[in-house]
Amino acid sequence: MKQLGSQTWEFTNRPVILGSSAVVGPEEGEGPLASDFDFIFDSLEMDEKTWEKAERALFEKASLLALINANIDKEKLEFFVGGDLMNQIISSSFAARKLGVPYLGVFGACSTSMESLAIASMIVDSGGGKYALAGTSSHNCTVEKQFRYPTEYGSQKPPTAQYTVTGSGCAVVGQNDGSGNYPVVVSATLGRIMDLGLTDPFNMGTAMAPAAADTITAHFRDTGLSPGHYDLIVTGDLASVGLPIAKTLLAKEGIPMEQTTFDDCGLLIYDLEKQKYVIAGGSGCGCSAVVTYGHILKRLKKGELKRVLIVATGALLSPLSYQQGESIPCVAHAVAIESGGEA
Amino acid sequence: MKQLGSQTWEFTNRPVILGSSAVVGPEEGEGPLASDFDFIFDSLEMDEKTWEKAERALFEKASLLALINANIDKEKLEFFVGGDLMNQIISSSFAARKLGVPYLGVFGACSTSMESLAIASMIVDSGGGKYALAGTSSHNCTVEKQFRYPTEYGSQKPPTAQYTVTGSGCAVVGQNDGSGNYPVVVSATLGRIMDLGLTDPFNMGTAMAPAAADTITAHFRDTGLSPGHYDLIVTGDLASVGLPIAKTLLAKEGIPMEQTTFDDCGLLIYDLEKQKYVIAGGSGCGCSAVVTYGHILKRLKKGELKRVLIVATGALLSPLSYQQGESIPCVAHAVAIESGGEA
Repeated sequence: MKQLGSQTWEFTNRPVILGSSAVVGPEEGEGPLASDFDFIFDSLEMDEKTWEKAERALFEKASLLALINANIDKEKLEFFVGGDLMNQIISSSFAARKLGVPYLGVFGACSTSMESLAIASMIVDSGGGKYALAGTSSHNCTVEKQFRYPTEYGSQKPPTAQYTVTGSGCAVVGQNDGSGNYPVVVSATLGRIMDLGLTDPFNMGTAMAPAAADTITAHFRDTGLSPGHYDLIVTGDLASVGLPIAKTLLAKEGIPMEQTTFDDCGLLIYDLEKQKYVIAGGSGCGCSAVVTYGHILKRLKKGELKRVLIVATGALLSPLSYQQGESIPCVAHAVAIESGGEA
Repeated sequence: MKQLGSQTWEFTNRPVILGSSAVVGPEEGEGPLASDFDFIFDSLEMDEKTWEKAERALFEKASLLALINANIDKEKLEFFVGGDLMNQIISSSFAARKLGVPYLGVFGACSTSMESLAIASMIVDSGGGKYALAGTSSHNCTVEKQFRYPTEYGSQKPPTAQYTVTGSGCAVVGQNDGSGNYPVVVSATLGRIMDLGLTDPFNMGTAMAPAAADTITAHFRDTGLSPGHYDLIVTGDLASVGLPIAKTLLAKEGIPMEQTTFDDCGLLIYDLEKQKYVIAGGSGCGCSAVVTYGHILKRLKKGELKRVLIVATGALLSPLSYQQGESIPCVAHAVAIESGGEA
């Protein structure tokens, strides 16, 4: 591994994603990416008695499916790096219990998807392990209940609000032995906290946009690349409110984002015209995870994309910090992935 | 970095701890390790208006003190790996905001101390950065309020209960350039989840003991060492109930722990005879952090100890998982540290 600039790791041994999984709920199954998901639950309950147990079932299913898709026996897996939005990341810890391998719990709110992928890639790249699973999850009913109001209340939301994705995405990172056409994890740019003083938990896109712009700027400064190097750059879950703000901030920084397709996982996962209930778009740990591990990796494998940069954004508030009048610290972690054909 | 067996990383570039800090509350300041702490707050309020803001002040103070003790300018610090017990690890995220460097949030309950040290050491060892700060915190009043009852209720506790340490400990991990007599981070053994079905949040020592025994067993299996290699092996916070259970489990595994001094940070930090209110002993993320970064590192530097193994234990429950009848998944992460004189 090699440090580029101050915030970026280049994975010089080019670890690969041997297989991944994307498991979602019924609403994501009605969205435009439905055919890219491995499994779609037909109810939010998922045959469990509580929302939290449902989220756990979701995460456990995704983690086992990733191993199957990677053609790796559970016994061969060496490390699991995971986290989620639940207090004390219980969904992840229960999934870790089922996997039975050494477990590093992480938390970066919705940036957890790329934080866990960056750490899993570092483990494999630096010789710490042969196979490491990275994964995360979110469930609409657990997250809304914990951070805002239980969905059963049917409370109204402002037009800046986003809709928590019910989904879990996992990826098996393995050493690159040159065989197979696996997507390669090229680099990771770790984000620092950006907090512009916003305090509204119904306006996450605005709060997180500066973190996304800061990490993207750092990525190009550290690597010396320009946006045109990538066919696609996606933010995690800025949605319809946050993405234009990030675009404005990046334009001010002089980053020529017009060289590439710059989109957002929270916009890709739903049809905002038809699925009005998602308001500004998707959010939650599961959002960038299932869009990346379902949709984007499939496009890389098909050759429709060659190089992508996934910039997962996270709002690191707690209901209590918000109630105590604190602003929302935000972070974004970026991971660059390219198709196996590239060298 | 080199993988030993399946669970252990050997840090082949021998990263060092350039400086560390241990900041505690008034009760820890009345304990036997008082003279080893860098700063002792004389009230639990720490001049803040809420317990959570107090914990944040504690963590921020410890993180900045570690940089001072390491003689590193804040601007030189490259990564911060931190976590705590609060929902969404807010204490850590607010400390990260103050530090202004790329931030990896982690959660392993009370094992967070060694999880963060292991990841920070991996970053430095594998060339991902020159300086990485690892740290964690806990505060008696935030943790008791969140996991059990607000301390203001004055509720009674059973004799198996432990007392959450008010403390934050941080360490600056840096590259080993051969100069100075800095403690060396030699290896880390990452733990897997052990869950024997216990459900009592007032009996964490019993719940966590199997995780500690499992990780210690894995460490000696992976490294080929025996307990006599270390002058001291400490568990994180098994306290008076859990430590004897871990000893029994290790005896059953045939690990000759009698070759070394085998103790527990939760027993070292308080005088259980005089400080009756701690009941079975200390617990919380801050417990193993301040005992390691205050007491044990000082003993290593003085030459009183040559090689130590810190086995931080964590109970990965949430109040909600417990209320839904779930058992407590536990984990332990071990890090081996030796004095700089060793080669």
